[in-house]
Amino acid sequence: MVRVNLTPSSSGSGAVLERAAILAVGSELLGTSRIDTNSLFITDQLNVLGIEVAYKSVLGDDRAQLATAVRFALDQVGFVVCCGGLGPTDDDVTREVVAEVLARPLTEDEGVTARIRDRFASRRMDMPAINRRQAMVPAGARVLDNQHGTAPGLWIEDGDQAVLLLPGPPRELKPMLASVVDGILSSRSPHRSRVTRVVRITGRTESHTEEAVRALYPKWARAEVPVAVTILASLGQIELHLSARAGTSVRAAAAAQAATLEVVEAVGLDAYSLDGRPLEQVVGELLVEREFRIALAESCTGGLLTSRLTDVAGSSRYVDTAVVAYANSTKTSLLGVPGVLIDEHGAVSEQVAIAMAEGVRASANVDVGVGVTGIAGPDGGTENKPVGTVAIAVAFPGLTRSRQFRFVGDRERVKFQASQAALDMVRRELLA
Amino acid sequence: MVRVNLTPSSSGSGAVLERAAILAVGSELLGTSRIDTNSLFITDQLNVLGIEVAYKSVLGDDRAQLATAVRFALDQVGFVVCCGGLGPTDDDVTREVVAEVLARPLTEDEGVTARIRDRFASRRMDMPAINRRQAMVPAGARVLDNQHGTAPGLWIEDGDQAVLLLPGPPRELKPMLASVVDGILSSRSPHRSRVTRVVRITGRTESHTEEAVRALYPKWARAEVPVAVTILASLGQIELHLSARAGTSVRAAAAAQAATLEVVEAVGLDAYSLDGRPLEQVVGELLVEREFRIALAESCTGGLLTSRLTDVAGSSRYVDTAVVAYANSTKTSLLGVPGVLIDEHGAVSEQVAIAMAEGVRASANVDVGVGVTGIAGPDGGTENKPVGTVAIAVAFPGLTRSRQFRFVGDRERVKFQASQAALDMVRRELLA
Repeated sequence: MVRVNLTPSSSGSGAVLERAAILAVGSELLGTSRIDTNSLFITDQLNVLGIEVAYKSVLGDDRAQLATAVRFALDQVGFVVCCGGLGPTDDDVTREVVAEVLARPLTEDEGVTARIRDRFASRRMDMPAINRRQAMVPAGARVLDNQHGTAPGLWIEDGDQAVLLLPGPPRELKPMLASVVDGILSSRSPHRSRVTRVVRITGRTESHTEEAVRALYPKWARAEVPVAVTILASLGQIELHLSARAGTSVRAAAAAQAATLEVVEAVGLDAYSLDGRPLEQVVGELLVEREFRIALAESCTGGLLTSRLTDVAGSSRYVDTAVVAYANSTKTSLLGVPGVLIDEHGAVSEQVAIAMAEGVRASANVDVGVGVTGIAGPDGGTENKPVGTVAIAVAFPGLTRSRQFRFVGDRERVKFQASQAALDMVRRELLA
Repeated sequence: MVRVNLTPSSSGSGAVLERAAILAVGSELLGTSRIDTNSLFITDQLNVLGIEVAYKSVLGDDRAQLATAVRFALDQVGFVVCCGGLGPTDDDVTREVVAEVLARPLTEDEGVTARIRDRFASRRMDMPAINRRQAMVPAGARVLDNQHGTAPGLWIEDGDQAVLLLPGPPRELKPMLASVVDGILSSRSPHRSRVTRVVRITGRTESHTEEAVRALYPKWARAEVPVAVTILASLGQIELHLSARAGTSVRAAAAAQAATLEVVEAVGLDAYSLDGRPLEQVVGELLVEREFRIALAESCTGGLLTSRLTDVAGSSRYVDTAVVAYANSTKTSLLGVPGVLIDEHGAVSEQVAIAMAEGVRASANVDVGVGVTGIAGPDGGTENKPVGTVAIAVAFPGLTRSRQFRFVGDRERVKFQASQAALDMVRRELLA
């Protein structure tokens, strides 16, 4: 798609580009309803070449501000990728601002004008006069053909620095960038690969995870292939992102894999997935392995536990039946929970959870039954059983386990944490 | 939620903050899998006060780079909102970097330490030593209480400039920022108001919505208090954001309200919520109004429909029972669907959906029954009934309605659209 698709050797004059800044241009991206997602694709493409994204910014259609931001970015990282603001209208200012910052006069490229005119002609339209703006090219820039729109991209080298201008619409940007990555950029990149592994952990807090693994950080940082680590807490789980960089993807992958295994050694069974798979999928795969079917009796999770399990493609192989028993009468009628048990221990109790798990397991005639009962809130809590109290039981052939939890947060958070804990109890039992 | 909730007059020393920069801090936000969405909420809150977001940036956990970015932002706009990087671990650097840039020494605030310790104690845990980092406060800063996490926020004024540090997790950030907007910031803002109303629509496409309302745009744009409109399509629904700006919030609200009512006139019953309430809440409120209880028989939605209904606080008043019948035998045993109906019409048919809806309504002895059966995919489709085919029935006293849909998308998208269509069928019947 790039008009001049240079071989590496013919453009090898500039220095290697180690780090980039991404500037997304467009006032619409500074509102409350749109978000820049182009930068994810750009980051992915740059990472493949070993170019790191140092930072990214979203800027409005403001000449002075954009000029300041481009100058700052060139100063900081030497390589700037701008997307958006290449359209034909007055509020599209990227081309002119970059030309001004790099002190390159703009002149009309007749070849570009002809291609834009052809594009309109193919739709039986005349080219509006304003589209000539899109044919203005800064001196010394290379024009990057746009197969999917009128705005050509631009590649401008300035000593050891470089600026890449891409159009904003993703279907125009993506093929253009892919061509640049294969062509011009491949000769200017560090030729390093980054491989990231995501370890997902449940059953311990962020701090307790960090305590278990932090002793490994200095070793990873000093290693021949260094591994960077980011620790992320989200509801009901912790993620460790282990990122290795090396001259080849094979070496980077080996280092990331070795670090992954060290994490597993440190946190044991709390690591439920080494490749980002969600817990419901891990549980599903273990059920398939054991050729087990599962049935669920949910109260406070209100169907969420079953919905998560059935999000996984192929889950009809192992999900049989679920009963959401919000009413106590349903616990008795559909699940066979003795009314006396509810009277004696309360609907939220390990005893009732056990009866729910065993009841649904028996009535569906499957291998695994799960019972969840609790107080999701905001009402219904008592002194002994405050909001967030949840009892969970898992019934297996010849063995039933139960636990009581106290989760913190609003209704949806209690629901999610309870579903996470129930899935995790099933997982640990399937691994035992 | 803010510990020191100042009245406007008591903090009126600083200049009016006209423009802000938002800096989202976290290396994970520079990868390819996560995106900063906090800035949308922050923008919305600042806009309410008439403060414009000049630009926003995403930065890694890099001290030198963050320091440069904070200095640059202060220089450019005078008001910097940082989110993220306030955690207890080594890679959380925002607090220290900002203290350094503003040359404010950090000292431990014993009160903050005590609150963090209490937070752990309420979960029956000791505070890990590393959490003391979160109690370090730059000289002259105000501490902003965090009701939902350990990281306090910070407000630091420096002459006419100001820096606001917020924690990254949205449920911690949102209430804290809302308090700051009501308190400290209200006295430093340009006192212009923007009021946005969100009309949610289901049952028509984005194009058909636009066709119905576009004639109103020019009038809104020319009005004395102009109303800007953004139309957003998401799965199973369309949102119209109507945004009015005026010197007072009362005038802005009146203009937004008038525009909202014109939209309702244009799209009729397809507008299900005029204030952003989700469909499950609207349905819940209608059930409460009619004093109806509901029971659900789900197949392809796998519990999602019930989970959405039970996300609403107080839903135990009207949600009675749900059966997720993934196995055909469950459709027969628990829901009383005649096996011959399944043999004749197939499990995915309006006939079976009707039998499911009426069966669960009868067995739970409630007013409303819903039956959903379909093919969520990726497997299980046939020529006549491809993936995405879903039959839905709603049974009311003396009346049952059914419809067959064909949704497009992967498994999770089919599940969601089916749950949305089922809720909408219940809603329209409750309004009839």
